[in-house]
Amino acid sequence: MNTICLPKSKLPRIVIIGSGFAGFSFIKAVNHKLFQIVLIDQNNFHQFQPLLYQVATCGIEPDSIVFPVRKMFEKYENFHFRLATVTKIDSLKNILHTDIGTISYDYLIIATGSCNNFFGLQNVEKYAIGMKTIQEALDIRSFILQNLETADATCVSKVRKSLLHFVIVGGGPTGVEMAGALAEFKNYIIPKDYPELDLNEIKISLIESGDRLLKAMPENLSKKSLKYLQDMGVEIHLNTTVADYKDDVITTKKGDEFICKTLIWTAGVKGNVIDGLPDSVIGRGARILVDEDFKVKHTTNIFAIGDIAAQINERTPFGHPQVAPAAIQQGKWLGKNFQNIIKNQKVKPFEYYDKGSMSTIGRKRAVAQINNKQYSGYIAWLLWSVVHLISISGFKNKIMVGLDWVSSYFTYEKSNRFIIRKFHQQNKVK
Amino acid sequence: MNTICLPKSKLPRIVIIGSGFAGFSFIKAVNHKLFQIVLIDQNNFHQFQPLLYQVATCGIEPDSIVFPVRKMFEKYENFHFRLATVTKIDSLKNILHTDIGTISYDYLIIATGSCNNFFGLQNVEKYAIGMKTIQEALDIRSFILQNLETADATCVSKVRKSLLHFVIVGGGPTGVEMAGALAEFKNYIIPKDYPELDLNEIKISLIESGDRLLKAMPENLSKKSLKYLQDMGVEIHLNTTVADYKDDVITTKKGDEFICKTLIWTAGVKGNVIDGLPDSVIGRGARILVDEDFKVKHTTNIFAIGDIAAQINERTPFGHPQVAPAAIQQGKWLGKNFQNIIKNQKVKPFEYYDKGSMSTIGRKRAVAQINNKQYSGYIAWLLWSVVHLISISGFKNKIMVGLDWVSSYFTYEKSNRFIIRKFHQQNKVK
Repeated sequence: MNTICLPKSKLPRIVIIGSGFAGFSFIKAVNHKLFQIVLIDQNNFHQFQPLLYQVATCGIEPDSIVFPVRKMFEKYENFHFRLATVTKIDSLKNILHTDIGTISYDYLIIATGSCNNFFGLQNVEKYAIGMKTIQEALDIRSFILQNLETADATCVSKVRKSLLHFVIVGGGPTGVEMAGALAEFKNYIIPKDYPELDLNEIKISLIESGDRLLKAMPENLSKKSLKYLQDMGVEIHLNTTVADYKDDVITTKKGDEFICKTLIWTAGVKGNVIDGLPDSVIGRGARILVDEDFKVKHTTNIFAIGDIAAQINERTPFGHPQVAPAAIQQGKWLGKNFQNIIKNQKVKPFEYYDKGSMSTIGRKRAVAQINNKQYSGYIAWLLWSVVHLISISGFKNKIMVGLDWVSSYFTYEKSNRFIIRKFHQQNKVK
Repeated sequence: MNTICLPKSKLPRIVIIGSGFAGFSFIKAVNHKLFQIVLIDQNNFHQFQPLLYQVATCGIEPDSIVFPVRKMFEKYENFHFRLATVTKIDSLKNILHTDIGTISYDYLIIATGSCNNFFGLQNVEKYAIGMKTIQEALDIRSFILQNLETADATCVSKVRKSLLHFVIVGGGPTGVEMAGALAEFKNYIIPKDYPELDLNEIKISLIESGDRLLKAMPENLSKKSLKYLQDMGVEIHLNTTVADYKDDVITTKKGDEFICKTLIWTAGVKGNVIDGLPDSVIGRGARILVDEDFKVKHTTNIFAIGDIAAQINERTPFGHPQVAPAAIQQGKWLGKNFQNIIKNQKVKPFEYYDKGSMSTIGRKRAVAQINNKQYSGYIAWLLWSVVHLISISGFKNKIMVGLDWVSSYFTYEKSNRFIIRKFHQQNKVK
């Protein structure tokens, strides 16, 4: 296999795999004059995952929540991006194998994030759509619209009902936000766009295996989010675990059945592990076990940060939460302390600062917990909007998303209802 | 085959195939209270083709030049949209066959537009990308970026040069505008995004079989557009006809060779004909021959408008030009006169009002001929911008495109440089 072409440099080379929140924050924080920095990702952009559900429900343009990697670091002298998929880590030779060739590293930062966890349910993996990438969000957008179109053209009631039943599995923030946005789509868009469809035939169900939604939040807010969703017409099934999904039928462990063409899976994630690391460093949920400096256990020059990493100690027996703020803080911390760490100098230990969490549920309603204070309703929704708008990369993206929001606030519109690439359930792209 | 489900109606049914300029204008103009109107298209949106090249060169979001069909006609009582591909017209039984079932009509309007004409060059058809649809524009965007990425990672000069040679075939408005926008991309974006690439290795060639560009315009403007493009670094090859394209090599009839990975084809169009009409009604360029009322020759209740139609008489021996204004005017005329025509009453003949034509060439430069007056340079560019902004469907789309333009005017940016779906040359989607 050939070597990926890179300019010669006398500087030690750091290779970062993954242009997500962790990888980006690391590159921004590390002293980029002292290293040759090579970022590898299979996409040429960074995506703002918290708003994927709005792309999936036609609320915003896909282009406005992604940001070009090369533009982000165009001022960096020793920065190089390579569009590639890493297939194997050879930690003995300090070499990565990718689909476009090999690359050697002095230091490796694994920031590959997490992907959908289907918990071994093969049929679900085959036919459900996850919501971890912009491609999946666009697949969901297409599939919802395709099924509405097909339903509108079919006179067979049984077929139509299956096409008009949208099931979301997973009552975490993604599932709750998706259910809320989809309910809005049903309530405001479908009556105008599909006047021939009977609104009573259109069903949105949210299935959660636990006994409440948003289990990372206080119970009080879980209850509120449940009520908000029910008010909007979402059917919620708690204590319900999916067992299989075949021929458009979800069966649950209890034996219930849900007939539906669309199954959106937000029920869990697992680490996006790359071949080559010993099994002994892979922990629960396929996360890579790291020490206090985010160095991968038993290695000297390989680090892992973000969703993929599990830093386990007394304070964090399960690792830090797999959320954007944790990834950002880890990337920043490792970047800032990188020189000291590689010189084996003592550094102030990483401490995760939990800013709290928030979830929006349709227009004007959200729940939030910030610094142990709880917010709900309109205020929480305003907070949510401001925080997310600030966090999106790029001034133009902020403007575009802001405009979309203001416009849909007043018009109740979700105007990006386009099937540009059809989604074929039988032929799902991973 | 089953029948496409539609509400029962006592009104006569008009089926329109195609949600382009012609079909849209017809529906807006016809008295929609007197007919059941069914629009069929394989996309659920109307696309603004004149700006496809800006999507292809990362200047604007794809979502901002498409508009949802259902939203456009949501106020119409007897309007129905069906997402389908028509496979055959059965004009004896007044039935259409589609991929989702059959549908009967009282009146049929064929407004299927035109598609790429590869003039029998099979390898070109296989490996080149046309620019007639939003999907193709996105394919071009992906492919240009993919090839830049691959070039940046390869040390083999020969391979890199082929990846960095972008050839556009066809010196009409689409080819000229595409070449200009791509030259801008080369001059303003590549030096920032790909500092390792040698700008001298990046080549944009425009190949035209005739002896001048923009042959529908006065010679003077052809010369200006040629100069503008050459100033921007585009290599122009007039009197050059493509003969084949194999293993990344274009051969011309004269025997010249162009080595390039990217071949963008804008050299010609042909009618998007549907099976079932007799050969005798298909004329030059696969256009359907229509009479003075746009009725398809030898039929009584089938009409054709827009690019697909050829209304041939003394004044228009080759039919009207295949451009948006002609399609819009034809749709409007047929819609307004439809009741009289089907009652066989005399109507004022259609007259095409040629507003002139315009092409933009990069930032701040364009050529235009309007009411026999010629404009070029900055003034023409301003005119072009205003005319196109006004013509885009939807207020939000106008705002989005306008913002993109203003922002790129000041920043020289083209910020939508994303490979969201990779383009595989070997596996081209039609």
